Amino acid sequence: MTAFLDALRAQLGDAGLLAGGDLSAYEGDWRKRYAGKALGVARPASTEEVAAVMRLCHAHRVPVVPQGGNTGLVGGSTPDDSGSQLVLSLSRMKRVRGIDAANASLTAEAGCVLAEVQAAAAQAGMLFPLSLAAEGSCTLGGNLATNAGGTQVLRYGNARELCLGLEVVTATGEVWQGLSGLRKDNTGYDLRDLFIGSEGTLGIITAATMKLYPSPKERLTALAACASMDDAVRLLGLARERAGDALTGFEVMNRAALALVARELPQLAQPLPGAEWTALLELSDAESAEHAHAVFEGLLEAGVERGCVQDAAIAQNIQQAKAFWHLRESIPLAQAQAGLNIKHDISLPVSAISGFVAEMDAALAAYLPGIEVIDFGHLGDGNLHYNVQAPAGVPAAEFLAAHEAAINELVYDAVQQRGGSISAEHGIGRLKREELSRRKDPTALALMRSIKRALDPLDLLNPGRLV
Amino acid sequence: MTAFLDALRAQLGDAGLLAGGDLSAYEGDWRKRYAGKALGVARPASTEEVAAVMRLCHAHRVPVVPQGGNTGLVGGSTPDDSGSQLVLSLSRMKRVRGIDAANASLTAEAGCVLAEVQAAAAQAGMLFPLSLAAEGSCTLGGNLATNAGGTQVLRYGNARELCLGLEVVTATGEVWQGLSGLRKDNTGYDLRDLFIGSEGTLGIITAATMKLYPSPKERLTALAACASMDDAVRLLGLARERAGDALTGFEVMNRAALALVARELPQLAQPLPGAEWTALLELSDAESAEHAHAVFEGLLEAGVERGCVQDAAIAQNIQQAKAFWHLRESIPLAQAQAGLNIKHDISLPVSAISGFVAEMDAALAAYLPGIEVIDFGHLGDGNLHYNVQAPAGVPAAEFLAAHEAAINELVYDAVQQRGGSISAEHGIGRLKREELSRRKDPTALALMRSIKRALDPLDLLNPGRLV
Repeated sequence: MTAFLDALRAQLGDAGLLAGGDLSAYEGDWRKRYAGKALGVARPASTEEVAAVMRLCHAHRVPVVPQGGNTGLVGGSTPDDSGSQLVLSLSRMKRVRGIDAANASLTAEAGCVLAEVQAAAAQAGMLFPLSLAAEGSCTLGGNLATNAGGTQVLRYGNARELCLGLEVVTATGEVWQGLSGLRKDNTGYDLRDLFIGSEGTLGIITAATMKLYPSPKERLTALAACASMDDAVRLLGLARERAGDALTGFEVMNRAALALVARELPQLAQPLPGAEWTALLELSDAESAEHAHAVFEGLLEAGVERGCVQDAAIAQNIQQAKAFWHLRESIPLAQAQAGLNIKHDISLPVSAISGFVAEMDAALAAYLPGIEVIDFGHLGDGNLHYNVQAPAGVPAAEFLAAHEAAINELVYDAVQQRGGSISAEHGIGRLKREELSRRKDPTALALMRSIKRALDPLDLLNPGRLV
Repeated sequence: MTAFLDALRAQLGDAGLLAGGDLSAYEGDWRKRYAGKALGVARPASTEEVAAVMRLCHAHRVPVVPQGGNTGLVGGSTPDDSGSQLVLSLSRMKRVRGIDAANASLTAEAGCVLAEVQAAAAQAGMLFPLSLAAEGSCTLGGNLATNAGGTQVLRYGNARELCLGLEVVTATGEVWQGLSGLRKDNTGYDLRDLFIGSEGTLGIITAATMKLYPSPKERLTALAACASMDDAVRLLGLARERAGDALTGFEVMNRAALALVARELPQLAQPLPGAEWTALLELSDAESAEHAHAVFEGLLEAGVERGCVQDAAIAQNIQQAKAFWHLRESIPLAQAQAGLNIKHDISLPVSAISGFVAEMDAALAAYLPGIEVIDFGHLGDGNLHYNVQAPAGVPAAEFLAAHEAAINELVYDAVQQRGGSISAEHGIGRLKREELSRRKDPTALALMRSIKRALDPLDLLNPGRLV
């Protein structure tokens, strides 16, 4: 491997290759579930350098683990503990290459931090809507490699739907120049969407052209108390009907989730305490603040009239709106403070959610009395973070050791029966690879494996992940 | 081949196999550019029967040409003249399998005619927005295989963006059960989008789950006269800014296009005669008729104030709105009546359109004085049908024979220089396969070919098309 590292250093210079020193920042994930050992960390500064790295890796048969902001949740972007895998960090490729305002598009390199892409769009007077908790450190390349979701999917779609074109380096170090600002292009297979969501196993995304949107004139946030998940689903239908595409967010939190926040983060105000379910609605209005208020008030009144809203609070200013969102986003933090739990990132057809929640809550209570379900997520997309916590007094580690496998089985069986997904937005990585191979349609698995063999016959791109 | 046809008949019954008689309806395309000879026409009635056909074709090495409504424009769905290719017609698989209103989704078989899918959605009180001129005979499977565009792409996207899940039969006769009503699912490679737009070369789409939308409360149509393409692009930007997602259509027609309609179809009223460019705008309002009118009037007034609109007419009722759309949709008919022409289905970044049109109009006038450019299309998506007609008095056939190749070269060179596409919505088929292999990024072509080999190693699925 010395010959390989020497060749790599000759290609990238000292700034472009870390080897020998402390590489721990690149070797472990931030949740500390995976700790690996890297052969080295390549930090190419250009697409040509990425291609050169891949050509060397191909010649020397060195496996590559692409890494963006390393904020993933499934062990997809850190090396295993063999010491034989090269981390390919895109962190030096962080240029916004251009903004075409008339075409409502932006081209940026893979290592751009998501918040910086948002800021570049805002500077041009436009909106780049992808938004998620890690936006201060996750990168555009990682967002695309994992088809990131977040809080604006209901209106704007996942990372996939926001992407117009890609630049990709293949396993053999060729460059596919697929950057494009086109909305319509039927000239062959959809390579773009094949690379998006492939978790670095088919190629290295080095740059992307993304859609921009007009900034809304006004953005309003409200909380609504609902008596049941069924009522929350009815409110979602009503909001879609009345607000159309102005509805840019629809989140839910169950009582246990907000009770946990009250316990762990008592400084946070809770405008609708004790609600069985709390919905967070966001409206983005293209017209005016007055129009936005009128639509929101009409919607919530209609919700009360139809009996699916018990109480509601519209944020009166930006600070209050932020506080509403902060309440929602604090749930994972409150959970982390409360100790380990069993996380599920599931999606279901919206029509199946209410039945799933009722049945699964009951099944878990029967399985282990006192068990606590912290249930929250993006109801508008059918995506729930359905997390399960130990009964009061039971140590979390003991609970996980004894029950994690059985509870996963209960939850995933019910999800699968209803046509749902075991990974809505977090991806597969190492964490869910076994589960996927057990549960995914066998023809789909065979197709995926034959595509992987076709594009990466030596299995050098993020081996052991996803497929 | 007798053994193969006997085995096929045993599997499908007499209703399921046409062979020997007059098969011309399946052998030629409706534009009469391609006339082929089929080995036979298989008409399976279920997914299992499609799988059985593919297993037999695989065993006997028989190439398959999948066919939906056979309304394509690029020779993708009819057999060559060898008499060795089996047409696989999906026309008997036309069941709407179900509508899930709460999940805003519909599942239908590939042979469903598009207008019937629209009608099924409307019966459930919802909107299925895919809409194109051939909707009375094209099928959902064909729409997906070609990633159809149409008039509502600006707001709702191409067929790809409307699809949630697929059921597909592979080259070896396996069934991928990928029907799904999920908005978020990150469990592996995006097989769905790989099959969409692959023109039957990777697998047979047998059914799909599609997105539905709330029906708008009001739909309004207007025509606006613009002095230049530049003004039309400015009006588009203004419309997006003021109407947001309520803007569901933005078409343009140049003066020559409407003059041709006036000549060939004089019975059609022309509300804004003599305009250099005429834009057709459609607004779909989630709120009310009053709100829609207010937005539209404000928008057109702003257009006049900013100098990008010279005159405008808002349709006063549904009949008038239909007449406005009919004017736009009559251009191809007027062209057909006027004789052969050189068609281009191009797309460009919206920011590049005005420059392209000015340069190319001038280049063509210089190339052959008197040449006529019939230019119209979906400006909102950057998609122009930039068609070139013989100078007055020059016979069309003579014009095409002498100039088609040179004019294609002029147009496609300019499109490529500006990052555009030589096939925005019609696909590649047989018509543009050579052109594609000359103009597409070589790495993309290599990737496409390796995917084709991986999924269809015997080259039985629509051979000679696309790749």
